[in-house]
Amino acid sequence: MNTKEIKAYGTESAEADLKQLQINRRVVLENDVEIDILYCGVCHSDLHFARNDWGMTQYPVVPGHEIVGKVAQIGEGVSKYKVGDIVAVGCLVDSCRTCQNCKDDLEQYCPEWVGTYGGYDKHLETNTHGGYSETIVVDESFVLKVPENLDLAGIAPVLCAGITTWSPLRHWNVGKDSKVAVVGLGGLGHMAIKLAVALGAHVTLFSRSTNKIEDAKALGAHDVIISTDQSQMEHVIGKFDVIIDTVPYEHDLNPYIGTLTTNGTLVIVGYLGPIDPMLVTVPMIMGRKSVAGSLIGGIAETQELLDFCGKHNITSDIEVIKIQDINTAYERMLKSDVKYRFVIDMKSLKDN
Amino acid sequence: MNTKEIKAYGTESAEADLKQLQINRRVVLENDVEIDILYCGVCHSDLHFARNDWGMTQYPVVPGHEIVGKVAQIGEGVSKYKVGDIVAVGCLVDSCRTCQNCKDDLEQYCPEWVGTYGGYDKHLETNTHGGYSETIVVDESFVLKVPENLDLAGIAPVLCAGITTWSPLRHWNVGKDSKVAVVGLGGLGHMAIKLAVALGAHVTLFSRSTNKIEDAKALGAHDVIISTDQSQMEHVIGKFDVIIDTVPYEHDLNPYIGTLTTNGTLVIVGYLGPIDPMLVTVPMIMGRKSVAGSLIGGIAETQELLDFCGKHNITSDIEVIKIQDINTAYERMLKSDVKYRFVIDMKSLKDN
Repeated sequence: MNTKEIKAYGTESAEADLKQLQINRRVVLENDVEIDILYCGVCHSDLHFARNDWGMTQYPVVPGHEIVGKVAQIGEGVSKYKVGDIVAVGCLVDSCRTCQNCKDDLEQYCPEWVGTYGGYDKHLETNTHGGYSETIVVDESFVLKVPENLDLAGIAPVLCAGITTWSPLRHWNVGKDSKVAVVGLGGLGHMAIKLAVALGAHVTLFSRSTNKIEDAKALGAHDVIISTDQSQMEHVIGKFDVIIDTVPYEHDLNPYIGTLTTNGTLVIVGYLGPIDPMLVTVPMIMGRKSVAGSLIGGIAETQELLDFCGKHNITSDIEVIKIQDINTAYERMLKSDVKYRFVIDMKSLKDN
Repeated sequence: MNTKEIKAYGTESAEADLKQLQINRRVVLENDVEIDILYCGVCHSDLHFARNDWGMTQYPVVPGHEIVGKVAQIGEGVSKYKVGDIVAVGCLVDSCRTCQNCKDDLEQYCPEWVGTYGGYDKHLETNTHGGYSETIVVDESFVLKVPENLDLAGIAPVLCAGITTWSPLRHWNVGKDSKVAVVGLGGLGHMAIKLAVALGAHVTLFSRSTNKIEDAKALGAHDVIISTDQSQMEHVIGKFDVIIDTVPYEHDLNPYIGTLTTNGTLVIVGYLGPIDPMLVTVPMIMGRKSVAGSLIGGIAETQELLDFCGKHNITSDIEVIKIQDINTAYERMLKSDVKYRFVIDMKSLKDN
């Protein structure tokens, strides 16, 4: 198959810093869109993948799945996009398209979904490579339209941090007068607050520290509960319809279960691992409460979110960086030293 | 307040066997129904309460919350029942009637619900006493109608074992073509199978041992999966919409999570305690799966179930005993040596 060599940023081992690499993109096939990448958000998963934290990385890896760009070329079968359109690509670039999940617009749960990076490109017969690169070639079915009124850098994190919180908010029917709590104020948490507020919910942030209060209110949160303060926690017992838990490390879920209302659900979107300390069943039984997991969102739902962001003028709060600063950005991300998402201006790669 | 002394069976300490006691029932108040108890089912909770396994028992305790009887007397404000009616009482005899849960017909989640035994009788200012007794006096709002076509002994366990499984089946929308699995084949499990089958679902029993296969099929189960057989478990990955987990002791939920379909829910109805081994979040996230708890059911829902049982001619499979055999029954229950519920013929107490 014909390929095109482009510049990218990635790494060839778990121990090495990211650096400039040359990678191959496939030439545009019948249903493909070639996108000149303008911006790419920096997700915590990028770092986990680069460093093989999940033991599944194949090298070289080129991270990046919060991609915004401009259509440079289209295949002859492409009908949704034309050259010059501003488009986006999220965490998925393909799926089997025939299973029940695909039929239900839940491609993220298709057993054969192809990740934007670290997946398997059946055309090139190699790993997929992500958005830390000049261009990307994606089947139009997995390309999204970006509303014209939005800041292009600010919309990038919506493709992962946004949809990861939007999908459970929608699935658990958050709307006007819903009581929503968000655990953790990072990339995911700050989007959860903005989106839940825009959906009309009353939104509370759970935080361990008082220095997040001002930030949370600035994002639209109506309340902040300091989760280490027993009296504040008692004040919200039985209150929340939905809790979006964005914390990416081990933490005790049991105190939050107590703050769910009857039929309430705590949705885990940030933490991969065993629930330690153990969940206790009695508080779940006494009120028919649920603990659930949720993964990003499907393509139709991601488009719905982008349109919603356009209508409500929502973007992510970001810090724009050059690709050459990615290793420093990873170190700062590990210290939660970012409000709330780094976004790479890909001009810095092209100009290099 | 005027009271009436009656015969009952109970215990005055955690260590002692149950024996015959005299207890006081309140005289019939304006909205009260006095019921001559005909049958009372024997629930595992009865044993836990008698032996103070949950550390909350106040003695003397008279267990029993699967009560079927005949109306002997009514208060002047009673409109739903008349003397001679066949009625039932389940796990609840009162609630606050004003909170949101009560308004939503979810009295079982009212923070002030009054248990049929071990609760607080505000009229007598003492513990409530359950159905191991000659009579019980209950506000008509917590009394249920029993369909005339049903076996009166066999319907008793529906009041707890039945409603405990019915409520989650209904809440999670089990119906025609739903794929339901039941974990454990005891009092709760056998009712879960019968009810899910009658709702039109395809029903699978998870069991550790092959000697339950025939029993489960006789109850209507379409399939039995031996949960210790890895290849059988792999065969049902991603299959079930709802799993009703009736097992009352610690067990690993993770293998069952894998057998849920996208958006599936495992509902814990039998086990009180920490979830050990720990739940792992990745399989929950990969398919938006939930783990939930559920507690008995509300009064309206219990009436719905009794009516459903009448229509579908469903009762519990039982072994009728005399009250004098209750201590032996407890020992046999601890060994799961009952198919599937003991029911006390209360004539044995009256005649004594």
